[in-house]
Amino acid sequence: MIIIGIAGGSASGKSSIANIINDYFNKDYCSYLIKLDDYYKSFDELSLEDKLLINYDHPTSFDISLLINHLIDLKNNKSINQPIYDFVNYVRKSETKLIKEPDIIILEGIYTLYDEQLRNLCDYKIYVDVASDIRLIRRIKRDIKKRNRSLENILNQYQTSVRVMYHDYIEPTKKYADIIIEQGKENKEMINLALKNISTILNNNMI
Amino acid sequence: MIIIGIAGGSASGKSSIANIINDYFNKDYCSYLIKLDDYYKSFDELSLEDKLLINYDHPTSFDISLLINHLIDLKNNKSINQPIYDFVNYVRKSETKLIKEPDIIILEGIYTLYDEQLRNLCDYKIYVDVASDIRLIRRIKRDIKKRNRSLENILNQYQTSVRVMYHDYIEPTKKYADIIIEQGKENKEMINLALKNISTILNNNMI
Repeated sequence: MIIIGIAGGSASGKSSIANIINDYFNKDYCSYLIKLDDYYKSFDELSLEDKLLINYDHPTSFDISLLINHLIDLKNNKSINQPIYDFVNYVRKSETKLIKEPDIIILEGIYTLYDEQLRNLCDYKIYVDVASDIRLIRRIKRDIKKRNRSLENILNQYQTSVRVMYHDYIEPTKKYADIIIEQGKENKEMINLALKNISTILNNNMI
Repeated sequence: MIIIGIAGGSASGKSSIANIINDYFNKDYCSYLIKLDDYYKSFDELSLEDKLLINYDHPTSFDISLLINHLIDLKNNKSINQPIYDFVNYVRKSETKLIKEPDIIILEGIYTLYDEQLRNLCDYKIYVDVASDIRLIRRIKRDIKKRNRSLENILNQYQTSVRVMYHDYIEPTKKYADIIIEQGKENKEMINLALKNISTILNNNMI
């Protein structure tokens, strides 16, 4: 079993690239996509008001330990019950997603390459590198459309949190990547190179 | 007479810094602020529909030749009638602004350092360097507030024109600057250094 880690800033196209990789290997292998966002800590003891005060862009808001334990379990041929996060109520859902006997895990999220132990579990590390103004435009459009948020609210969160976390914690993990995919999902050439490299790692792993 | 050129991307804070410099020298010297935007070509022969098709972010939309002639006139102690641009009707206004016997001209605009001849007329060259996502946020806020434009329209113009022109024509002029002011008007330290340098140039020029 191999793990592919995909990191990068907000709205860089991590999720699209994760899907491309998953679709590519899904036919011949048992592949699963895991989103770091599903490993948000649950903070069940907090009121909704207090939950809204949490900085969800900060690395400590994710349950990295649980994710690491799950990945180790999968590497040891144990199945896991992956948590599913409820973005409406800011809690972990009661249902889970069973993942068993994978050939490939594609792990996608802003902090995929942040924690050393998590990073070392990845057999291939991808960083999606897209200019900050382009990511901001995508984020504005997505948040207005899908999350029904006001422009003021979006820009405020971007400036006070998303942008700061990016420079402090996400961008510094670029150096750990095996491949940097600039421009995101449009960069067919680099995505094809990544697919080729992953195939090689997978073949060596299956022997 | 000395000329201070201030360049940088859209919403980098060029105008604020030009005002700080102007306010600083205005007490003791005859200083004038010239905005490159007032030197937009007038395109009087075009209909309003055709005027709206022009790329106003492109260097060829500015009457750089007229500006150069005016600056040479001022250097030769001739007064000039500076054009004033009408941003509502996309034409040059009939009235002009008389500029005579300046000690300092502060010239501010995206293409101030683009044309070689114009650049060489500047005695001190400033480039205001602010991250693209921060400039985009400022531009969105300004355009919604002052120009009553839709977000879609603003983002579309930014992606198809402003951003492209910046990378193709504006950012490459950074190398010509005598000083780069990062973060814009908040960077008191570099602004003070610029004021000090300009004072020295001015004193040497007045002797």
